[in-house]
Amino acid sequence: MTTLLLTGYEPFGEYETNPTSRLVEALDGTKTGEATVVGRELPVVFDDALPALRGYLEEHEPVAVLSTGLMPGRAVLTVERVGINVRDYDGVPDNTGAEPVDQPVDLEGPDAYFATLPVRELVEELQAVGVPARISNTAGTHLCNNILYATRHHIETNGLSIRSGFVHTPFSHEQVARRGTDDPSMQFETMRTGIETMLRYLATTHE
Amino acid sequence: MTTLLLTGYEPFGEYETNPTSRLVEALDGTKTGEATVVGRELPVVFDDALPALRGYLEEHEPVAVLSTGLMPGRAVLTVERVGINVRDYDGVPDNTGAEPVDQPVDLEGPDAYFATLPVRELVEELQAVGVPARISNTAGTHLCNNILYATRHHIETNGLSIRSGFVHTPFSHEQVARRGTDDPSMQFETMRTGIETMLRYLATTHE
Amino acid sequence: MTTLLLTGYEPFGEYETNPTSRLVEALDGTKTGEATVVGRELPVVFDDALPALRGYLEEHEPVAVLSTGLMPGRAVLTVERVGINVRDYDGVPDNTGAEPVDQPVDLEGPDAYFATLPVRELVEELQAVGVPARISNTAGTHLCNNILYATRHHIETNGLSIRSGFVHTPFSHEQVARRGTDDPSMQFETMRTGIETMLRYLATTHE
Amino acid sequence: MTTLLLTGYEPFGEYETNPTSRLVEALDGTKTGEATVVGRELPVVFDDALPALRGYLEEHEPVAVLSTGLMPGRAVLTVERVGINVRDYDGVPDNTGAEPVDQPVDLEGPDAYFATLPVRELVEELQAVGVPARISNTAGTHLCNNILYATRHHIETNGLSIRSGFVHTPFSHEQVARRGTDDPSMQFETMRTGIETMLRYLATTHE
Repeated sequence: MTTLLLTGYEPFGEYETNPTSRLVEALDGTKTGEATVVGRELPVVFDDALPALRGYLEEHEPVAVLSTGLMPGRAVLTVERVGINVRDYDGVPDNTGAEPVDQPVDLEGPDAYFATLPVRELVEELQAVGVPARISNTAGTHLCNNILYATRHHIETNGLSIRSGFVHTPFSHEQVARRGTDDPSMQFETMRTGIETMLRYLATTHE
Repeated sequence: MTTLLLTGYEPFGEYETNPTSRLVEALDGTKTGEATVVGRELPVVFDDALPALRGYLEEHEPVAVLSTGLMPGRAVLTVERVGINVRDYDGVPDNTGAEPVDQPVDLEGPDAYFATLPVRELVEELQAVGVPARISNTAGTHLCNNILYATRHHIETNGLSIRSGFVHTPFSHEQVARRGTDDPSMQFETMRTGIETMLRYLATTHE
Repeated sequence: MTTLLLTGYEPFGEYETNPTSRLVEALDGTKTGEATVVGRELPVVFDDALPALRGYLEEHEPVAVLSTGLMPGRAVLTVERVGINVRDYDGVPDNTGAEPVDQPVDLEGPDAYFATLPVRELVEELQAVGVPARISNTAGTHLCNNILYATRHHIETNGLSIRSGFVHTPFSHEQVARRGTDDPSMQFETMRTGIETMLRYLATTHE
Repeated sequence: MTTLLLTGYEPFGEYETNPTSRLVEALDGTKTGEATVVGRELPVVFDDALPALRGYLEEHEPVAVLSTGLMPGRAVLTVERVGINVRDYDGVPDNTGAEPVDQPVDLEGPDAYFATLPVRELVEELQAVGVPARISNTAGTHLCNNILYATRHHIETNGLSIRSGFVHTPFSHEQVARRGTDDPSMQFETMRTGIETMLRYLATTHE
């Protein structure tokens, strides 16, 4: 059986909800082609996110990992090209209060890893089904970048054959309505369609 | 029978579609409470929009007019507070090529008119149903401002008892996906929910 | 003797300084052509700003009033086209803690007044001397809009022959450097050049 | 004699001027502490920029390289943290018309290199002298990223002991005034002060 691991994050900072937490809950256990989706929420804790993810890799042996996270201010789904070896809290402490500045994700690791998902093809698939999307060249320096880099580093240093990458989402429409701001946002079902579209592409292009 | 007039605009400038054209088509003929919605598309032509709208007022005798238009760059539904006595093409000619600069909408009219729709209540209604929304203090100086001002001026100078106002929409998700940009956008069904919510509020608060 | 009144605002909200306070101090008493500049700081208090300005009008009998204020987020000098009859604190209380919502500036006043300064010519003058500038169609609903509207209303209802208008400035470079943000900003001397350019234009076009 | 190499770029795309071209011309031959600045303009040509820079390294044997480039839309000086192994024209062809998509800068190179300039210290130095500045985590995928990555790769693969990095500038005030837009910008003299401040810091912290 082919498994795809989908991760999201718990709420953090001033945000009471996180659409990526709902996404993994909604898609956990669903099928796409011959693959089964395992959806899991990760903690917004620099030191705990990778250990949690490693546990899911061992338990489920997925052929690909698609991690997702909320980036306030983004207006479209952004497929990240690269994760860098930096932990910087940039004004938003993690959920244990950690505030790293210019720390490495891994002391021995290289400066950066490219995602091994086909980022351009994924963006084209998304746009083809009417989901706004773009390639992004920075995942920031927070938890999202952290898991993108750390997952790739783990896969690389353990000689695993798993494709992995990261997608940032905007706020959901409901979040912005509740906050009463005019931040960019995306309808939750459209995000879900987007994630399903990417998972299907990953399932069908799996060697 | 109580009638609500809903207007949208045809496509303009570099944009091949206009979500407000689809909105009026989708809602034309629907019922909200005891009111019937008349949905009509207006031309993006400075000199033709008001005459078209005047015709619909005479034909359908609505108790309220809700006009809508696309504002590229807006991220939420923005309920406009005021229309000003200015026509300025601001770099985007109308669909006949007209390029007015600092012209008045009406030579005799006052500097501006407030919308007579309850703008704050409408924003609160929208947010309550999960539709991102805000009050806006500028409808620009293009067709949208033009119809907001001209409708109010027509109502005022003819002693009519019709509430009127204007709502700007973002791009739809599909538009941004097709354009391949990272502009803010809103799902079309969410816009539709928003417009229906406002029409229902106008129907129920009609004296 | 011909006098031009230049007003700025004291600091407000979270901002420790206000470049428009420095501007009026720097330009008070200077000459431009045959005119003398009277530079005065106004309080960021909805109920006190107009009375203060009225006092300066009576004392100095200027032929024109150029009011200025800081608008965080603006990237260029924006010459305001219109002031509207609204006081809304929009999340930032004034310096006495007042938080008006959808209140009028003047109970009897019209919905809005256009500035009587030549806004397009001023923008062209600014751009010609290398100062970034644009026409703006909204001065917001805070103190800046308040003084723009109230000054025009006072002039109009008292039959005075004084041109008046408003210009918003970005943050100064120093402010953004001190705040450590990446907000747009303008060098203080460039703002000063801009204000002097506008005052000179007003002095030379005075009938 | 200690030499610091400062590079800028020629104009590109729709932009008739490039403030970084003026910066290198203005600072070429100046002294900072005991170091001499060599200022050189690079071509906006993917295949020619590194060869040109390599020539300057051989000729002048600098202890550090500070490269600069214009990034339309940036509002402050942004000190880049990382260059990635990607050439993507992203809609703006280089000055020979080249339009690479997802190409590597170097076929054999690693995914990315961190700048070896002290990015956080440089930002703090800039802010301390009133120059708006921030760390950036993406230099894009155009010429600027290209030279940041390629310079580091050249230094690394040749065992040289030269610190290198990249700083993006906003438009100059004059550029935005001439273009008539409301893009963020920075006064040219402030940029110059910023570059001088960074060069001085590099000169004094040189081992």
